[in-house]
Amino acid sequence: MKRTNLSTIQSLLEGSKLLNCPHPEAVEIDKVLPLSSDNKDYLSFVSSKAFVNEANSSSAAAILVSEEISSSIAANKPLIVVPHVELAFSKMLLYFNPPKEPNGKISPHSVVHPTAQIGENTEIGHFVTVGANSKIGKNCIIEDGVKIENDVTIGDGARIGMNCVFYHGTVIGERFTVFGNSTFGGDGFGFVYANGKHNKLPQVGKVVIGDDVEVGSNCTVDRGAITDTKIGNGCKFDNMVHIAHNCVVGNHVIIAGQSGLAGSVTLGNNVIIGGACAISDHLTLVDGTIIAGGSSLRTSPKTKDVYVGWDLGLTFPEFQKYRVNIKNIVNLNKWIKRIKELEKKAGIEGEDI
Amino acid sequence: MKRTNLSTIQSLLEGSKLLNCPHPEAVEIDKVLPLSSDNKDYLSFVSSKAFVNEANSSSAAAILVSEEISSSIAANKPLIVVPHVELAFSKMLLYFNPPKEPNGKISPHSVVHPTAQIGENTEIGHFVTVGANSKIGKNCIIEDGVKIENDVTIGDGARIGMNCVFYHGTVIGERFTVFGNSTFGGDGFGFVYANGKHNKLPQVGKVVIGDDVEVGSNCTVDRGAITDTKIGNGCKFDNMVHIAHNCVVGNHVIIAGQSGLAGSVTLGNNVIIGGACAISDHLTLVDGTIIAGGSSLRTSPKTKDVYVGWDLGLTFPEFQKYRVNIKNIVNLNKWIKRIKELEKKAGIEGEDI
Amino acid sequence: MKRTNLSTIQSLLEGSKLLNCPHPEAVEIDKVLPLSSDNKDYLSFVSSKAFVNEANSSSAAAILVSEEISSSIAANKPLIVVPHVELAFSKMLLYFNPPKEPNGKISPHSVVHPTAQIGENTEIGHFVTVGANSKIGKNCIIEDGVKIENDVTIGDGARIGMNCVFYHGTVIGERFTVFGNSTFGGDGFGFVYANGKHNKLPQVGKVVIGDDVEVGSNCTVDRGAITDTKIGNGCKFDNMVHIAHNCVVGNHVIIAGQSGLAGSVTLGNNVIIGGACAISDHLTLVDGTIIAGGSSLRTSPKTKDVYVGWDLGLTFPEFQKYRVNIKNIVNLNKWIKRIKELEKKAGIEGEDI
Repeated sequence: MKRTNLSTIQSLLEGSKLLNCPHPEAVEIDKVLPLSSDNKDYLSFVSSKAFVNEANSSSAAAILVSEEISSSIAANKPLIVVPHVELAFSKMLLYFNPPKEPNGKISPHSVVHPTAQIGENTEIGHFVTVGANSKIGKNCIIEDGVKIENDVTIGDGARIGMNCVFYHGTVIGERFTVFGNSTFGGDGFGFVYANGKHNKLPQVGKVVIGDDVEVGSNCTVDRGAITDTKIGNGCKFDNMVHIAHNCVVGNHVIIAGQSGLAGSVTLGNNVIIGGACAISDHLTLVDGTIIAGGSSLRTSPKTKDVYVGWDLGLTFPEFQKYRVNIKNIVNLNKWIKRIKELEKKAGIEGEDI
Repeated sequence: MKRTNLSTIQSLLEGSKLLNCPHPEAVEIDKVLPLSSDNKDYLSFVSSKAFVNEANSSSAAAILVSEEISSSIAANKPLIVVPHVELAFSKMLLYFNPPKEPNGKISPHSVVHPTAQIGENTEIGHFVTVGANSKIGKNCIIEDGVKIENDVTIGDGARIGMNCVFYHGTVIGERFTVFGNSTFGGDGFGFVYANGKHNKLPQVGKVVIGDDVEVGSNCTVDRGAITDTKIGNGCKFDNMVHIAHNCVVGNHVIIAGQSGLAGSVTLGNNVIIGGACAISDHLTLVDGTIIAGGSSLRTSPKTKDVYVGWDLGLTFPEFQKYRVNIKNIVNLNKWIKRIKELEKKAGIEGEDI
Repeated sequence: MKRTNLSTIQSLLEGSKLLNCPHPEAVEIDKVLPLSSDNKDYLSFVSSKAFVNEANSSSAAAILVSEEISSSIAANKPLIVVPHVELAFSKMLLYFNPPKEPNGKISPHSVVHPTAQIGENTEIGHFVTVGANSKIGKNCIIEDGVKIENDVTIGDGARIGMNCVFYHGTVIGERFTVFGNSTFGGDGFGFVYANGKHNKLPQVGKVVIGDDVEVGSNCTVDRGAITDTKIGNGCKFDNMVHIAHNCVVGNHVIIAGQSGLAGSVTLGNNVIIGGACAISDHLTLVDGTIIAGGSSLRTSPKTKDVYVGWDLGLTFPEFQKYRVNIKNIVNLNKWIKRIKELEKKAGIEGEDI
């Protein structure tokens, strides 16, 4: 814990100013916590007006806040007014919880092939293997138990989670982060049924991942069949995300936990896919498309929008109407009976449905 | 295989009595099997009246049964009448299949940091790493390939499955069990979109797990963002269960395979979540709530009940009615046509829907 | 890259003939690529008439094609007419991308128990463990970081992916393939609720897998409770597939990514389950049943058919009608209002639904 006075903290936050704090050098901070924490000497934040009351009763030593909200907070609360609260908050979290730096050592308990290249200041943990002709960049942390086959390229500044595995030929850009037990470059799922069995189609494409990508724990990205599976820059995947062979994922795409792309799905830039979604093979989502969590998509939506549901292809407003009608579905047989009654009274003989 | 006579076995089961067995010392048992197994010298069980016929034709050497059902079974079948058949059965399974005991050895092929503390009689398999200041309790089995970072605490009597990984600061109670390839304490999925990209929110909370928890294979539990992700006592998770950051899970919660909790979900005690369920972020389930398998939940149900469906928020009786109406949905366009016909005949001009 | 002339290639493909290629010895091929690749000296293929135009403008050195389609392609394109395009294509992919052969070496960085048996020419990578009395067949590749407990049997010709784990007693047939981080033989999920907690039912069955099975990355197959979990011959599972305890899977079954079978599911032969499906416990699917991706099945379909949906148990034609009616559901409340209007006009007093 590094104790830092409020004056120094304010100086770290570009465009910020202090309010309600006559002696910022005398106020010391040593951590970042939520507003109503039972603690002291902590910095906190208010992200919306909904939290003003909580802010007023908070025991935080200082609170990050937007200009707009600052005036709603009691005059005795030291505030740091910042242009972007979440970014300032994120910066302070990082300041008080600096990430592990690579120690530049290669564990003697690891096996690095003589032809592999390991960049300057890269740390390689215990029980790691790095195969022939693989290249790992500078300032990386390859955590314990990672297995890297031959001809893999990983860019500078990577942090590779414990027990992750990388099959041959995988290519990864700069500043890649992945957590434990994820698998890259396993064969795509391709078989031809003939002669009474499923005959394997060799999977000879690669996995190619851009810069600034973060992948969670226990994810899988399969190699392409003939051409490559591609993931753009700045993508962020949560845990247990599955990317099948020949998917082409744009830049800055978000995929939340336990969602999967079947084979040859194409995602535009800035697509957001919620958790537990299933995207069928060969679909295309245009730039900025949002798929709400729990959805299962069977056809490509033609326009950028928010879609929800289980192959229903509903936009969010449509889905809201759909929800309203659930109770009507539950009673649909009763309504149908009433249609029949009406027909009877009107002397109409309806067909037998 | 330890052969044990029926007299001894009966003495191991509290509150039990033997029926139809004049010479229990002469009947030897060496395993536990289902009723209709093609085998001999086995103990079996009847858990409901539906299996009485199977019991009567069973070649089991003896059958565990409740008082109530015992009278329905043929008089030539040796029976052990017990107060709770499943518990007795479980006890006998354990008796004939005792779990592996820790051998108290630390493999010379593992790397335990000098500051780590390993409890008495704990076994550490091959290619394990234990980081600085981590503490592992007594009588644990840390299976091959497990990776434990620094500042991790694991209580007494743990069994940690092969190739599981534990990130720094994870705290786990007594008698914890987990199977292979699970990941604890990976970063939560938190980003702030600004300046055209997803900026990482540092995840500095921990994972804190209670006593008597069992977790399956290939699960993930993420660390909290600022505060901790918490799992209570006695929880049991199946395979591929995903617990996102800042979830707070009560005691004795069951989560079946491939289900996931999005961020900041709160589960009360004794909640049961079936397989393949998706629980949206920030939802709360009260004590005893049951979510049927395959459900996707988007709003917090207000009361304890059994819920089913895909955001439909239906109770089970409602869901049963919903199912009945599926065929009516399939023909809904025909019914709508009939409403229009009725309107035409009645001289009503309906709006264009 | 092995360059091979077209004459040799044609001779490798049984039942093939060359068209539009006067000098096949002079045409050299060194890879297989899609039709419209920006490359040269590559072999390609046409799998349906939809690609004839793409074939005509392709710069492929030669194209695999069926007799039927061959006549539609321009006369200047060298063609290899084959009886089964996908199989020929697959064979050529394999020819130009031969799989890694086992090198027959056991890494000195691995720990093989003295009682374990390793077959001839089997390669064991680094940081592998093989437990007591386990038997691994001939010509296998056990990749880095694999952990095999005691009493495991793996047949000849296996390729076991990096960091996979096998619990005791698992039995696997010939020519098994699995990719990274999969777990076999973890305990099934079985508890008895009594005395205010979930009491573990010991899981003492095994996992038994047939011949020619392929499993993807990060899959889990649990051991049976009392009897075994069984997977037949020729089955192919994609990534993150979960097979619970006591499932019995027939031969040549396909299960796509992120799908799971709950406990005691029985699948006939040649069943196909799409991605992201959830099959409830104790269901049975007859031979040849197909479950479309994203489906959640709660009852056993009685006949062989294609089923879709979320417990709707709809056949595909029914599902198509269901989809058509989604918009009608969205407006169902409006239609109900119109039924009420009609009733009013007809002097019918409907019950309050």
